[in-house]
Amino acid sequence: MHQVTVPIRDAPYQVLIGSGILDQAHGFLAGRPADSPVAVVADANVAERYAGEVRDGVTAAGRKACLLLVPPGESSKNLSELERLYDGFASIPLDRRSTVAAVGGGVIGDLAGFAAATYLRGLDLVQIPTTLLAQVDASIGGKTGVNLLQGKNLVGAFHQPRLVVADVATLRTLPPRELRSGLAEVIKYGVIADPALLEQLASERDAIQRAQPEAVEGLVVRSCQIKAEVVAADERETGRRAILNFGHTLAHALEAATVYHEYLHGEAVAIGMVAAARLSCRLSGMSPEVSRQLEELLRSYDLPVALRTPVDPARLMEAARRDKKARGGALTFVLARSPGDVDLFQVDESRVLEVLEELMP
Amino acid sequence: MHQVTVPIRDAPYQVLIGSGILDQAHGFLAGRPADSPVAVVADANVAERYAGEVRDGVTAAGRKACLLLVPPGESSKNLSELERLYDGFASIPLDRRSTVAAVGGGVIGDLAGFAAATYLRGLDLVQIPTTLLAQVDASIGGKTGVNLLQGKNLVGAFHQPRLVVADVATLRTLPPRELRSGLAEVIKYGVIADPALLEQLASERDAIQRAQPEAVEGLVVRSCQIKAEVVAADERETGRRAILNFGHTLAHALEAATVYHEYLHGEAVAIGMVAAARLSCRLSGMSPEVSRQLEELLRSYDLPVALRTPVDPARLMEAARRDKKARGGALTFVLARSPGDVDLFQVDESRVLEVLEELMP
Repeated sequence: MHQVTVPIRDAPYQVLIGSGILDQAHGFLAGRPADSPVAVVADANVAERYAGEVRDGVTAAGRKACLLLVPPGESSKNLSELERLYDGFASIPLDRRSTVAAVGGGVIGDLAGFAAATYLRGLDLVQIPTTLLAQVDASIGGKTGVNLLQGKNLVGAFHQPRLVVADVATLRTLPPRELRSGLAEVIKYGVIADPALLEQLASERDAIQRAQPEAVEGLVVRSCQIKAEVVAADERETGRRAILNFGHTLAHALEAATVYHEYLHGEAVAIGMVAAARLSCRLSGMSPEVSRQLEELLRSYDLPVALRTPVDPARLMEAARRDKKARGGALTFVLARSPGDVDLFQVDESRVLEVLEELMP
Repeated sequence: MHQVTVPIRDAPYQVLIGSGILDQAHGFLAGRPADSPVAVVADANVAERYAGEVRDGVTAAGRKACLLLVPPGESSKNLSELERLYDGFASIPLDRRSTVAAVGGGVIGDLAGFAAATYLRGLDLVQIPTTLLAQVDASIGGKTGVNLLQGKNLVGAFHQPRLVVADVATLRTLPPRELRSGLAEVIKYGVIADPALLEQLASERDAIQRAQPEAVEGLVVRSCQIKAEVVAADERETGRRAILNFGHTLAHALEAATVYHEYLHGEAVAIGMVAAARLSCRLSGMSPEVSRQLEELLRSYDLPVALRTPVDPARLMEAARRDKKARGGALTFVLARSPGDVDLFQVDESRVLEVLEELMP
């Protein structure tokens, strides 16, 4: 088992990464004040199995624990499901020393995390991510929230967990497309911070695609180290944390323009990274060879490197402008000079449109 | 005009107190980044007038400002009105550098404050309290939130404002009963921290009851100083801040048991303080003379010193146990040894019942 510390100022916490380590989660939960109950929140899908294991582990240790289920899928990340969780918390009832455990992918982590951030003005939270995307990204850093009809993640809070338990054994039951979607974020960490990670992704491709625990564990550890370092430097996303958005400006726009139906998040990020790399070649001195290798790596993991179906470029640009990172109409992109050397750039919309044309099917 | 600093660690802020000082609010708001709009939230009642003045002041300075109205009354402090505010924010649309201004009483401060705490993971907030209760209590300290059917303030966040503007001229339009309700909290500050404040309340009663600005201004300043000091020592209410709850354990129970229809908050606090003082005489060495003087002072301001209608004591105790400050069934009370010397005590339910019997009509 590996431990990565997220060294934020007030309450540093550990990310535990290993295979078959769910007992670390219930061990931690059971060790909290025994007279305050635990709420285990999971999606009524694969995660239910792991969540049940956690709940039983806590109960066996003599602490009250209740399982609250949320319908699977992004559409559950809304205010109605949030209210259902509050109602569940109130009927257990949770008290101020209770802990919420979120077992599942990013939707559960964000929704249950936000519920924990706001119930009784903030309860302790343990993240138990069961998708690769959540293990390398969403479970670390304290971003929680729900969507409004008007946009994703418009409502939310920063609420750091007390502990993250990333059990890579849970990834064996993950659909291959979701595994690949998570790998897009791992590739992103390679581009923004660690060329060696890109080499590892290229050389261990077979083992990684089979979700072989030893191979995946290394990727999760390295990704978490990078994210932990960036988050600790900028907990509230006022500066450096923005580099985590490499590939995301266009990814968010593409997801919004296709109403979140066509691309998984990692797939949109893959396309967004291709666009960012091409812009980097033109504007921040990235060598075309690096950009080509990135596209090659994405392709080797069956991730898209161009749009699958045409999207009106004007609509994409409008969605990009609306993205909450937009400032006064200018488009902000994270661009790379070389792997590991990235920065924020203001990019003319005409340059973005040029690249978009290249990526149309 | 007086300034009180709330010296919290990350972002200390000023409470401005004076008569006819609303322009301080729009001056501050207009000075924020001019390309990000301001949302002014108010109840569709007296506050609308002052909120319109603030909105116009901001617009005149060239910054976009929109007024969002909430139906008056405690029943607006719920998740539906919260969602309406989010929708309003999204249609303006607010961006990350926008500011939310809350103009009104505690309901508006709590509701708009929580919306600001959670929209785009936290927007700047300016509190412009227009009731005495909000000026001396709710607007300072960062507590925000909404009620659930299962209980008050079950959902919320700590979100400190950037500025508080307490214009005592707005109190001249406040119904006398609401003014008295706010005075109960001022009396509380006297008991927990400042015997001289109690003397001032006794000697300037006529001017205070007429909401004469000079008289009220002094009370607001002193109350804010006390609250600022307590909050700075314990921003997240893990310890000392609990002393602000003198009189509140029973007040919350009484409000819940009467479904929030019979007593204004300050009226319930008045009765709760009588109970706390009588318990203090028995358990923490308060002299009966002090307790009698407190009751006399409350009575002189037409505040209740006993229940107006009978309430089943068992129901009151049950509500007290459910209060989120309850720990493992024991009842925690703030009791005083003498004015200015208070502490937390665990009190046997039988002692509480004794006092309750005395306070029944």
